Amino acid sequence: MARTGRRPGVSGTREAILDAARRAFAEQGYQQATVRGVAELAGVDPALVHHYFGTKQELFVAAVQLPVNPVEQLAAVLADDPDLVGRRLAETFLSIWDHAADQSPLLALVRSAVGDEHAAAMLREFITEEVLGQIARRLGSPDARLRAALVGSQVVGLMMARYIIRVEPLASAPAAQVAAAIGPTLQRYLTGDLGAVATRP
Amino acid sequence: MARTGRRPGVSGTREAILDAARRAFAEQGYQQATVRGVAELAGVDPALVHHYFGTKQELFVAAVQLPVNPVEQLAAVLADDPDLVGRRLAETFLSIWDHAADQSPLLALVRSAVGDEHAAAMLREFITEEVLGQIARRLGSPDARLRAALVGSQVVGLMMARYIIRVEPLASAPAAQVAAAIGPTLQRYLTGDLGAVATRP
Repeated sequence: MARTGRRPGVSGTREAILDAARRAFAEQGYQQATVRGVAELAGVDPALVHHYFGTKQELFVAAVQLPVNPVEQLAAVLADDPDLVGRRLAETFLSIWDHAADQSPLLALVRSAVGDEHAAAMLREFITEEVLGQIARRLGSPDARLRAALVGSQVVGLMMARYIIRVEPLASAPAAQVAAAIGPTLQRYLTGDLGAVATRP
Repeated sequence: MARTGRRPGVSGTREAILDAARRAFAEQGYQQATVRGVAELAGVDPALVHHYFGTKQELFVAAVQLPVNPVEQLAAVLADDPDLVGRRLAETFLSIWDHAADQSPLLALVRSAVGDEHAAAMLREFITEEVLGQIARRLGSPDARLRAALVGSQVVGLMMARYIIRVEPLASAPAAQVAAAIGPTLQRYLTGDLGAVATRP
């Protein structure tokens, strides 16, 4: 970034930090990467990274260009009535992605995770630590992590079917209809009966 | 394929047909591609394509190297007790993919659909015509296609979470436990109450 010998402005510094963050997350994974390491790669002080982007989690959200911070959104939904969380989660997800002016960063993230083992590990670690971890802590039950992962499977599947493969009529069904269909699934995964394991005679 | 001037043997002819099929499906989509067109591309008689591979649907399954024909599997599951279809569908899916000696063709198919618009269209058309169409015909209800697409969303999401992103503990949970959790979701999407559309005051 200092190749031209000019001092970078604020936006140049921000971009350099984001570039360094993308490299660090992709190469070391979400868990191993640190704000300190990103700062070193970008040639700036760690305090500056914190100043511009906050925590590692917030830096990740900025680096992969998500339109909203899923961790914050999730916190808001989980603070709601526990019996309504499934429906609210479906509605929030649909409202964000249906209205995202640019869905391409999300699609790029899913594409890279599907196409590349490092990117898959990065996404897996972020989802496991920040997203599923938050749900699991909130639930507090012994099977909380499995429950959270089941929620993740339906949400990722909806993303694939509605926004990526675009299977009709799911791709253009009204959000309210989709939320009504998906909500109870998420609710059951979070707080319902996960069913007895089948035994074969 | 005739570049060396040698007459290809049976396996050479089969490979030439599969190559032509992959090209035809990728370039024209599943709907537009025809057995006749594939035969022409491969430089063989259409009867030979039918002889080796059967219908267009079976040719597609062979071309993308799926370990089983999902359309046939689905037919067997749908012929079962309607109240058990969700569970049986989950069990069948898990048993096939958990035991697939080589999951890479499936992963390659999902990767290409996520990374490339043509491949996404091809997969969308195959799923819509052959998989969801079959479920919808069996259900016969007016919302059958939406129901089938919802089933697809959970199945694709499970595939992503368990086999591609490999989120724990879902990736290594016993199949029976996962089927017990996912089965009722599929059952509800197929035959259950999809919920009233929320109205906001």
